[in-house]
Amino acid sequence: MSSSGRAPLIVASNRGPLSIVAVDDGDDDVRRGGGGLVSGMQAALSAAPDAVWICAALNDRERAMARKCTSGRLSEVPAVAEALAGDFDVRMLPIDALTFRQSYNGIANSTLWFALHMLYEPARSPVFDQAWRRQWASYVRYNRAFADAIAAEAADGATVMVQDYHLLLAPRMLRELRPDVRIGHFTHTPWVPPEYFRMLPDDVVRDLLDGLLGAHLIGFHTDRWARHFADCCTELLGRAPGSRLEVFPLSTDADELHERAYERDVNRAVRGLRDTVGDRKVIGRVDRTELSKNVLRGLLAYRELLRTRPEWHDRVVHVVYNYPSREDLPEYREYTAAVERLAREIDDEFSTDDWTPLVLEIADDYPGSLATMRRSDVIFVNSVRDGMNLVVLEAIVLSERDPAVVLSRDAGAAETLGEDALLVNPFDVSETAAALHEALAMPEDERLVRAQRLRKKAVALPPAPWFRAQLDALARISG
Amino acid sequence: MSSSGRAPLIVASNRGPLSIVAVDDGDDDVRRGGGGLVSGMQAALSAAPDAVWICAALNDRERAMARKCTSGRLSEVPAVAEALAGDFDVRMLPIDALTFRQSYNGIANSTLWFALHMLYEPARSPVFDQAWRRQWASYVRYNRAFADAIAAEAADGATVMVQDYHLLLAPRMLRELRPDVRIGHFTHTPWVPPEYFRMLPDDVVRDLLDGLLGAHLIGFHTDRWARHFADCCTELLGRAPGSRLEVFPLSTDADELHERAYERDVNRAVRGLRDTVGDRKVIGRVDRTELSKNVLRGLLAYRELLRTRPEWHDRVVHVVYNYPSREDLPEYREYTAAVERLAREIDDEFSTDDWTPLVLEIADDYPGSLATMRRSDVIFVNSVRDGMNLVVLEAIVLSERDPAVVLSRDAGAAETLGEDALLVNPFDVSETAAALHEALAMPEDERLVRAQRLRKKAVALPPAPWFRAQLDALARISG
Repeated sequence: MSSSGRAPLIVASNRGPLSIVAVDDGDDDVRRGGGGLVSGMQAALSAAPDAVWICAALNDRERAMARKCTSGRLSEVPAVAEALAGDFDVRMLPIDALTFRQSYNGIANSTLWFALHMLYEPARSPVFDQAWRRQWASYVRYNRAFADAIAAEAADGATVMVQDYHLLLAPRMLRELRPDVRIGHFTHTPWVPPEYFRMLPDDVVRDLLDGLLGAHLIGFHTDRWARHFADCCTELLGRAPGSRLEVFPLSTDADELHERAYERDVNRAVRGLRDTVGDRKVIGRVDRTELSKNVLRGLLAYRELLRTRPEWHDRVVHVVYNYPSREDLPEYREYTAAVERLAREIDDEFSTDDWTPLVLEIADDYPGSLATMRRSDVIFVNSVRDGMNLVVLEAIVLSERDPAVVLSRDAGAAETLGEDALLVNPFDVSETAAALHEALAMPEDERLVRAQRLRKKAVALPPAPWFRAQLDALARISG
Repeated sequence: MSSSGRAPLIVASNRGPLSIVAVDDGDDDVRRGGGGLVSGMQAALSAAPDAVWICAALNDRERAMARKCTSGRLSEVPAVAEALAGDFDVRMLPIDALTFRQSYNGIANSTLWFALHMLYEPARSPVFDQAWRRQWASYVRYNRAFADAIAAEAADGATVMVQDYHLLLAPRMLRELRPDVRIGHFTHTPWVPPEYFRMLPDDVVRDLLDGLLGAHLIGFHTDRWARHFADCCTELLGRAPGSRLEVFPLSTDADELHERAYERDVNRAVRGLRDTVGDRKVIGRVDRTELSKNVLRGLLAYRELLRTRPEWHDRVVHVVYNYPSREDLPEYREYTAAVERLAREIDDEFSTDDWTPLVLEIADDYPGSLATMRRSDVIFVNSVRDGMNLVVLEAIVLSERDPAVVLSRDAGAAETLGEDALLVNPFDVSETAAALHEALAMPEDERLVRAQRLRKKAVALPPAPWFRAQLDALARISG
C-alpha cells in the first residue's frame, strides 16, 4: 500500500476542468472549463476540502506547466490558483506525448470508441497487430499513471470517481495499490453485447472487464448499457460482476443553459437565423462531426422527405450545426467530406431563389448552435449509437417552439424520453423521413403535451445531483 | 388451399442441381451440378418417386429454357431429361431478371449476407431507403414465386426442404398456402444476436423471423447460430420460436472428395506446386474472394510471422487459392485489389532468388485448389464469421501431411473441430501469426494425434446422412 495523501474526494478524467491556452514568458493563460458535466462535478469537489481533480496534460503547453509543479498540483502556478479560487486543486499528469497520443487516439478513440459504438468495419477494421500492441501498452501506461497519481493523492478511505473509457484499467490498478479507497467509475459511452466486445483480443477483453470491476460502483446512462456490460462479464469473464452496477441517466441543467443561451452573441445568431429561415419550420440538429452521430443518413432522410413530401418545399429549413472533432483521424475527415458533398447535392436538387432548404455549418460556433436549438420546431438526433446524447435534452430545454423530437432509439436518451419522442431505427432512412414528416405535421395540441413532458424528462437528473447520487450510492456500499 | 401436386419430397433453393451452359439452335448444353451438398440431397430425392427440386433460373438462357416448359418441369427438355436420368425432376423458376437481380444481389447478398456475417460498416452501411425498399419488394416476390411453385408441386402431406437465406420468407408463405405439408429450412450462414439483427427495418425483422418460423424444423450448423436465432425471436418478435430448432453440422464426403482429388488434372497441379515449394512447409488456404473469408488479415498475419520469426524464411510458402466470387459488387472488387496489393508488398519485402514466400492465385482453378489441400502442412482458415466452412474439413481430409489447422473461432467448423485445431480470434493478427508459428513448429507426435482426430471429425456428418437426419427429424414432428 502506498502512503496516503490528503484528498478525501478525487475525480479522475482524461480532460480536466482547466485548459492552458498559452504559455508566454511564464504568463499562462488559464481557462476554467465550462459545460454542465464539469460544473456539476465541481460543485461536489468544492464542498470537500482538499479535493483534487486529476487529469491528463493534453498538449505540450500543459505538459510543460505540469512538469513545473513540484508537488504535482497546479495550484502552485499563480494563474491557476487564481482561476481555481480555492475551490479544489488540479493535478495534471504530464504523460509523455507519444504515450498520450497512442493511448488517446490509438486505443481510446479508435479502438474502444469504435468497439463501444459498434462502428467497426469488420472486413477491414479492427486489426490487432504488433503496431496495435504498442498502442495498447501506452494505454496501460496511461492508466497506470492515473492509478499511481490517485494513490498518492488519496486520503485514507477516500472516494475516487473515475470517468469514462479512457480509464477502464485504472480502477483495478488503484484497488490493488489502495484497497482502502472507495472507487466509482462512470462510462459515458454505450456498452455492447459480448458477441461484439469479444472482437477485441482475449487478454484485452479480460483486462478491460476486470479493470473496470476494480471499481465498487460502476455507472452507466441506461439499463441497456449496464445489462450489456453484465453480459460481457458473465460470458467473457465467466463470472457475474461483483461490483455494483447502477444507472444514473445524466440530464441537463436548465438554469445554466438558459443563462448562456440568452447572452448577446446567441441573440445575434438567432436574428441571423431568422433572416435565413423566415417563418418556415426549422428541423435543427447540433452534433460533433463524429461518425456515431449519423449525419449522413440524417441528410439522406431529409432528402427523402423532400422527394416524397413536396408539400414541405419552401416551408422547411434543415439547420445542421457540426462542430469539428477528431480531425486527426482520417475516417473522420473523409466522413465530413461526404457530408459536405451530400449537402451540396441536396442544395442543387431543391434550392430556389427564395428558399435555402439546408443550412450546414461545420464550425466551432457555440452561439450558432444554441441559436439553432432555440429556433428548432423539430429536434433531430439519429445517432447510430450514443451513450446518452445530451444535445437532444439541451435542445428540448432551449427550443422556444414546443418542439417535436425525432430521436434514434439507440441513443441513451431514448430510454429517458421514451415515446414522447418519435423513435427511429437510425439505419432506416425511410422510417426516419416518415418521422420527420410526422414531427412537422404533428397537431399542435399533441405537440404541446409531448413537449411539456419532454421538458420535464430533459432535466430529471442534472449534473450536480447526478454526481451526488453516485457519491451517495458509493457511500452505501460497505467497503 | 391450393390443389395438391404429385411430389412427396421437394427441395427448394436459389441455385439448383443443373445449369444450362448454352442454348444453341435448340441444343441445350446441360451440366449436372456436383459438389458434396448437391449430391447429398440428390440421393434422397432419387429415392422418392416424383420428387422435385425447385430452383431459380439464374440467367437469360435458363429463363428461356424454363419458359419453354409448359408443365414447369425441365424434364420436358430432352437434354435435361437425359442429364437427370429419371432420378428426380427440376422446376426452374423463370423469375424476371430485375426481380431476380434485386432479390439476389440487393437483398440476399448485400443486405442479409452482410447482416448475418456482421459485415456492415455502420457509419455508412446499411442504408434502408426508398431504393432499398424496391429491392425488398423483389425479395418478397422472389419468395412468393417459390412458395407458389412449391404449393403447386407438393403432394398431400409432402415434405419440403427449403435452403438458406435467399428463402427466409417462403416457409411462412407456403405454410399459409399449404398447411398440410411439412416444412424444413436450413440456414447455411451464421445467425447473429438480436442487437445486430435489429439494424434491419422493424417490419423486415418481423417478416424474416416470422417467415422462417413458418417452417416446422429450422436447422443450423452450430448451437451458437441456433441460439442467436432463438434470441432474436424472443427479443425482437416477443415470443419463443414455436418451431423446432435443431443443429445439423454438415461435414464432408471423403470418398467423393478423394476420387476427384486424385484425377489427372489434380496430380499435374500437385507436381507443379512441388516445383514451386520444394520441400518447404506449405501453409495452404482456399477461399472464395469473399469479405467474410478475411484473406487480408490472413496475409497480415503471415507477414507478421515472417517479420517476427525469421527462422521460417526460406522454409515456408503460403499458398493462397482464391476463386472469384460476387465480382459484380464493388466492395468485393476493391477488397480483392487490396489483397493483391498486400501480396505484392509481402513479396517485395521477403522474396529472394531462391524463395517465393507467397503464391496467390485468384482464379477459378479447382484442380489447383485440391492440389493445395493435398500439399498443405498447415491449413489456414481465419473467416471473420462463417456458417460452417466446409473447405477446412475438405482440406483435413485431403492433406497428405498430417496437417495442423489454424482456424477462426468464429467459423462454424470451430464447434465441430474444437481444440484439435488452433483456434484464433480472426481480428487478432498477432495471435494468428503466433498460431501459424505454433502450427509450423508443432511436434510431430502431437500433430499426428491431432490430425487423426481432426480427420474423424471432418467426416462426421457427410451430406447424405446430414440431409437424411433432417428428413427424419421433420418426420418425428407431429404436424
